[in-house]
Amino acid sequence: MTKYVYDFHEGNATMRALLGGKGSNLAEMTGLGLPVPSGFTISTQACMEYLANGEQLTEEMIQQIETYLARLEAETGKSFSKGDNLLLVSVRSGAAQSMPGMMDTILNLGLNDVNVERFATLTGNPQFAYDCYRRLLHMFGNVVYEINGSHFERFLTNYKETHQRENDQALTVDDLKVIVAAYKGIYKKIGQKEFPQDPKTQLFEAIRAVFSSWNNERAFVYRNLNDMSHQGGTAVNVQEMVFGNSGQNSGTGVAFTRNPSTGENKIFGEYLLNAQGEDVVAGIRTPLPVSTLSEVMPDVYAEFIRVANLLEDHYRDMQDIEFTIENGKLFMLQTRSGKRTAKAAFKIAVDLVNEGKATKDEALMQINPKSVDQLLHPTFNPVALKIADLITDIGLPASPGAATGNIYFDANAAKAAVQAGEKVILVRQETSPEDITGMSISEAVVTSRGGMTSHAAVVARGMGVCCVVGCEQINIDEDNRRVSYPGGQLEEGTIISVDGTNGAIYLGDVEKMPTEADESFQTIMAWARERSHLKVRMNAETVEDIKTGLAFEADGIGLVRTEHMFFKEERLREMRRFILSNRAQEQNRALSAILNYQIDDFVNIFSLTQDKPVVIRLLDPPLHEFMPHTKQEITHVAEQLGTTYAELQQRVIDLTEVNPMLGHRGVRLAVTYPNLYLMQAEAIIRAAVQVNTATFQVKPEIMIPLVGMKEELALLRQQIEKHIEELLKELGVTVEYTIGTMIELPRACLIADQLVDYADFFSFGTNDLTQMTFGFSRDDAGKYINQYISEAILPIDPFQTLDVEGVGELVKIATEKARQKQADFKLGVCGELGGDPNSIEFFHQIGLNYVSCSPYRIPIAQIAAAQSAIKYATM
Amino acid sequence: MTKYVYDFHEGNATMRALLGGKGSNLAEMTGLGLPVPSGFTISTQACMEYLANGEQLTEEMIQQIETYLARLEAETGKSFSKGDNLLLVSVRSGAAQSMPGMMDTILNLGLNDVNVERFATLTGNPQFAYDCYRRLLHMFGNVVYEINGSHFERFLTNYKETHQRENDQALTVDDLKVIVAAYKGIYKKIGQKEFPQDPKTQLFEAIRAVFSSWNNERAFVYRNLNDMSHQGGTAVNVQEMVFGNSGQNSGTGVAFTRNPSTGENKIFGEYLLNAQGEDVVAGIRTPLPVSTLSEVMPDVYAEFIRVANLLEDHYRDMQDIEFTIENGKLFMLQTRSGKRTAKAAFKIAVDLVNEGKATKDEALMQINPKSVDQLLHPTFNPVALKIADLITDIGLPASPGAATGNIYFDANAAKAAVQAGEKVILVRQETSPEDITGMSISEAVVTSRGGMTSHAAVVARGMGVCCVVGCEQINIDEDNRRVSYPGGQLEEGTIISVDGTNGAIYLGDVEKMPTEADESFQTIMAWARERSHLKVRMNAETVEDIKTGLAFEADGIGLVRTEHMFFKEERLREMRRFILSNRAQEQNRALSAILNYQIDDFVNIFSLTQDKPVVIRLLDPPLHEFMPHTKQEITHVAEQLGTTYAELQQRVIDLTEVNPMLGHRGVRLAVTYPNLYLMQAEAIIRAAVQVNTATFQVKPEIMIPLVGMKEELALLRQQIEKHIEELLKELGVTVEYTIGTMIELPRACLIADQLVDYADFFSFGTNDLTQMTFGFSRDDAGKYINQYISEAILPIDPFQTLDVEGVGELVKIATEKARQKQADFKLGVCGELGGDPNSIEFFHQIGLNYVSCSPYRIPIAQIAAAQSAIKYATM
Repeated sequence: MTKYVYDFHEGNATMRALLGGKGSNLAEMTGLGLPVPSGFTISTQACMEYLANGEQLTEEMIQQIETYLARLEAETGKSFSKGDNLLLVSVRSGAAQSMPGMMDTILNLGLNDVNVERFATLTGNPQFAYDCYRRLLHMFGNVVYEINGSHFERFLTNYKETHQRENDQALTVDDLKVIVAAYKGIYKKIGQKEFPQDPKTQLFEAIRAVFSSWNNERAFVYRNLNDMSHQGGTAVNVQEMVFGNSGQNSGTGVAFTRNPSTGENKIFGEYLLNAQGEDVVAGIRTPLPVSTLSEVMPDVYAEFIRVANLLEDHYRDMQDIEFTIENGKLFMLQTRSGKRTAKAAFKIAVDLVNEGKATKDEALMQINPKSVDQLLHPTFNPVALKIADLITDIGLPASPGAATGNIYFDANAAKAAVQAGEKVILVRQETSPEDITGMSISEAVVTSRGGMTSHAAVVARGMGVCCVVGCEQINIDEDNRRVSYPGGQLEEGTIISVDGTNGAIYLGDVEKMPTEADESFQTIMAWARERSHLKVRMNAETVEDIKTGLAFEADGIGLVRTEHMFFKEERLREMRRFILSNRAQEQNRALSAILNYQIDDFVNIFSLTQDKPVVIRLLDPPLHEFMPHTKQEITHVAEQLGTTYAELQQRVIDLTEVNPMLGHRGVRLAVTYPNLYLMQAEAIIRAAVQVNTATFQVKPEIMIPLVGMKEELALLRQQIEKHIEELLKELGVTVEYTIGTMIELPRACLIADQLVDYADFFSFGTNDLTQMTFGFSRDDAGKYINQYISEAILPIDPFQTLDVEGVGELVKIATEKARQKQADFKLGVCGELGGDPNSIEFFHQIGLNYVSCSPYRIPIAQIAAAQSAIKYATM
Repeated sequence: MTKYVYDFHEGNATMRALLGGKGSNLAEMTGLGLPVPSGFTISTQACMEYLANGEQLTEEMIQQIETYLARLEAETGKSFSKGDNLLLVSVRSGAAQSMPGMMDTILNLGLNDVNVERFATLTGNPQFAYDCYRRLLHMFGNVVYEINGSHFERFLTNYKETHQRENDQALTVDDLKVIVAAYKGIYKKIGQKEFPQDPKTQLFEAIRAVFSSWNNERAFVYRNLNDMSHQGGTAVNVQEMVFGNSGQNSGTGVAFTRNPSTGENKIFGEYLLNAQGEDVVAGIRTPLPVSTLSEVMPDVYAEFIRVANLLEDHYRDMQDIEFTIENGKLFMLQTRSGKRTAKAAFKIAVDLVNEGKATKDEALMQINPKSVDQLLHPTFNPVALKIADLITDIGLPASPGAATGNIYFDANAAKAAVQAGEKVILVRQETSPEDITGMSISEAVVTSRGGMTSHAAVVARGMGVCCVVGCEQINIDEDNRRVSYPGGQLEEGTIISVDGTNGAIYLGDVEKMPTEADESFQTIMAWARERSHLKVRMNAETVEDIKTGLAFEADGIGLVRTEHMFFKEERLREMRRFILSNRAQEQNRALSAILNYQIDDFVNIFSLTQDKPVVIRLLDPPLHEFMPHTKQEITHVAEQLGTTYAELQQRVIDLTEVNPMLGHRGVRLAVTYPNLYLMQAEAIIRAAVQVNTATFQVKPEIMIPLVGMKEELALLRQQIEKHIEELLKELGVTVEYTIGTMIELPRACLIADQLVDYADFFSFGTNDLTQMTFGFSRDDAGKYINQYISEAILPIDPFQTLDVEGVGELVKIATEKARQKQADFKLGVCGELGGDPNSIEFFHQIGLNYVSCSPYRIPIAQIAAAQSAIKYATM
């Protein structure tokens, strides 16, 4: 028999998955001997089975709930229907992870037309009893029958106005009786239902409603937005009511044990006297600072402070507490880890350690890695956002930040505007390498197509430029230089504000709040680096990016994308000359020219990275990416290279591929044009020789991309080694270089043990590996991937967070095969997932040596790496 | 210590991999007590280690060879250098599989300037001795020093002419001394080397040369053409010489134990008196039929017949025998399974069984599955081929056959020519669905692009139309209607002949030989079907293809590609209407129209297949494949559908994908447009209801393509089942249908256990799975895949033969996961590899239920399936 129900004595804080956050903490507080009203929790497992069972409670669940209800009646000496002492309960949802979208609460359950009178007699306070009944009708109708709360509110407001009652407290018993009758009328008229008079029926309907709410749209969207699984379910907590609204000696409040905005170590909270539940949050009456309670009820305040400190000490973290005072007695209704700003999070974490209240590990675990972005990028003022004109809020948040500027539709227009002193936002359907300069000078980049790993997203993230991609609601007409969106049109030059942290775009200039990395941040990051097993490298090739990464103490470079270097004007010309030529001599002349540029590139990199390892990926993209495509460009390039339009056009056509992602690129290019990689290898070695000093030796790690067969790697390794050895002999020096490969094809994973024989290291290229494993083209997936996520066909976007079952399984297979062959074989990740906390946890678990990500994600990765080390050390 | 050398008493026929075919058979014959000259074999393993060792024999090898040479000297009582009795040996290569490209032979090794005189004295025949020396110099120079044989031949011919010697026998001792001296001069002049006088040096150089020849170009190309591994290596056989040229009581010959052309059970062979080794094959003197030996040397003939019969009985197969008669004594120099025509192969196999000489299993194992093509398609007359003008011989043999016709460059021109009574060959850069009608009326199809699974290849193979693809040597200029190739140009209308069995194209009309399936063929095929575990289905959707498959007794259809049905004019219009519309009503109207066409399609299929299972793949290609692309087409279609050019063009652009292979297709389409699959499912069920009779019920197996996540399959299965159940309820009937999925994404393999919960069967789509696993686009891979194969980076074309290590590993993972979940889960293959013998062996091994291939490959697959069953039953 499955146990579906637990009373508060049976649970504890470790049972969060089964009992939800609220239930497990109520049980934990009960265990600590704190004043918690009695109750029981119906498990998340019951919820999932209820949902799988066509939204029906099973016989077994019903029986267990009945049993625990009887126990609750016995424990409290109260009863739903019999005897003198009336049992009223609250029913609240509580999932394992806090989830605002679904948090439905019903108070005062158990009241009905008869019980309300008994309750009036019992409390000697008919006004209080009818107020409770009125509240129950409102909440129950709203939560269980989905009657919009405004129907009740409107009637109440109206009534108070027409009867000149200043506030709720001013309502008389007779008023409340009229209101109760009217509310029941709303049930019939709007809900087409009667309010159930039987308390048990109320209870079971409330439980069903909470369980069903797991799948309501708000909850669903919330989980999607927060990368949460749809498989957890919510628990239901049934708890004896205590009444903060039973007079002036009662009240209710919420408090944080420290300031959640600044992190200051000072209790922070609010309360209302003679009020119940949601009144504090609802904002109808203005609550008082919790500190004033010390004057109103000094004993209660002292007890509250004692409990708050005890809870913070016990949980070793800042707590968010809900409490109620019933006739001068304090009751704890909830405690949980308090939400906080990133700034506060770092300060609290450091303070707790300094106060001896938490260990460094515990402090590190309190930091949400994703919140680090907030610290490093400005954010919009939330107050200003409330009144801002929204253009769209369903773009993909590709690169965090808050930016404002005038929109321009191409890189040249953007450049001109910047020269004229404007701040610009580059708006394009999608970006290509030719837009890079334009992107780098923009405040933000917005595209209507592409996903989180599209060109725009990857490049902007690398640059730290705010970016929103895949804004499908907006239509970008580049030809007519106009954007249309559901609410209107934007001409070139219009000012917009872009929130790269959540994917929203606003009209006009929205006020921003600066944020900065402070001492707490530095302390936490140092602890994180100390604690991690995984090293964190950067994906970078520009001086600016590398400096950023080094400032975050990156452990070297995990990916230099050499193709970016080929798009500069003069190299592009030589590269095109190389591609066009059929004669070895002419090809070699072009390569010699590029060689010199490449040496400079690598000298620039090595001079910064010094003795840190640097993985350099040899040329990867298909050749047609280097070719001109428009008629105008072809004409220009043909002139430049001294060839005919027809010949150049023919070569462009020859190079065109049906599926370039699966085309003639990576190592396949090198098999066809061996000199290409030899030139790059030579440049790397010559640069290393140039930069090496007596005090440090640079450590280039040469990486061959897109290998699928050991024969490819064997061939290229042999060619490159031979070329380098001859070169070093000629130069009479040595360089500590290694040669490895990128693992980005499913086949490479399956034969990883064979590849080990020819590689000094592997770096998993999770972008391409995800594309091949799913058969998704990241350039095209935008057409259906959002639908897949919103319909829960995909739990996550696999380009943002590792798909553990598919792509992860291949990474695991490769890791096991490689390490079986060579136990200490060096393994890293250089895809975009290298900066994603969930993915990092997986990479830690399977024992990779490092992850590599764009410079601005390094702190996130460092925190995630430390948390993984902590998590799996204690398991 | 590794054993590298085995004498003929140590080996036997089972040691073929180690000793090569020749060595193991010499050992086997020695074991049988047959007259085999003594000798020893240096293993294939020695060869591979020699090659890996930079083409050096190891100390260990040298020592063992010395030991066995000493043993040979002891056994024969002869010596290389000492004593009266001179040892001369032959040195021959012999790989595990017969390999003409590499078969180098040196006879009479051991002779030198001194020994030749001793040999003259010993044999009392100086002319014979010097003739042997002359032959040694020729063969050694050719094989070891790579001196072109023509240098020796030219001198000899010249000498005979100027000295009026009619033939070799007429040469005097003095003539031969002059010739020997001249040959040594050729060594110096051409080879820049002296002929080594030391017999042991000769031996070791010869061994090295044979080992090295494993990697010569001829051998390499031969192995590539015959799908043979480059990893086997060759053995070297060192054997005491016997002399067929030691007088008129001596001779040498080759014979087959049955007729290799017709299969007739009558010994078939030729011999020459007083001749050595290659003379019979060389064609200088005309050999005599072996039957005439009965008159010349009746005893020897009787012994020969005894040995021949003994060998055929022992090996239970027709043998190809080499023998030498030395002074009236018969010696066996080689026996091996005889090569034969496909026609002969079937007859011999059936006869051997009928004669009680072989079991059915042994008979089945004698058939080369690939040779079946010869029986089913006409072939060119080999004599006519010798004088034909070759255009290219490196096209890919995509669909077998021999065809002649006038070339045309588009389907319309081809149709016009056919109507005018011409036979045509369609020549295009690549084909698309619009070419299908043109292809079906052509004798052959030739393309310059694409691989073995390109559109042209797949469609032609399905149609049984001869086809050669990927002819990179020819340049097809469709605009100017001209083909240029290295040897010239072809205008439209030129007659060419196309060999779809080997990928060659000839100018003009080359004579053909008809072939036909006879009674032996039918017998063998019946045995094969009986013996197989794997069922063999067909990939087919046209009436003609299905009839062909049924004639070959296919076990149903493994793949109906429904997209082919959508390209007929009137459906294409409705499909385009569907794609263009945004309104549900209009979309449904278009689908209703298509529904009726689809019902007819499936009625046609089911009427033929009756109660055989039929897998129908729901729509797979991306929507843009249905859209017009040229300006002219867009204008036309816009008119037809009553929309504007701009609107239609915009939709075409919206649908365009960067990587269509990884795009919005297969099940992804159905997630976006659920009604598409529901319409198809409904058509299938309605057709089944229409065709079902009292005596049979059709068995549709509905297949959902491109599934990568269980959620996709769960969603679609639920939708389709619901739709069908409602329909059946409405119709008041039942239909035995199942729903399964195609496994063609790496991810699908990795989560196969999850998919089992929602599928009744899997069918592996090996084409797409190969593309994703390798990251190869089959449309583009032509650019490098040939280079990969010719440089041995790829051992095989993975689109032609399963890549066991990568793609096969995924298939195996999926099979294991599926069967762990459900032991009898139904698994098939419907990619092109389903018709490839090597791949079929793998599919048998891992326990699939069926393979499916194009109708004309069914007999091949049936033979391969039977052979796999036999092979793994006896292991």
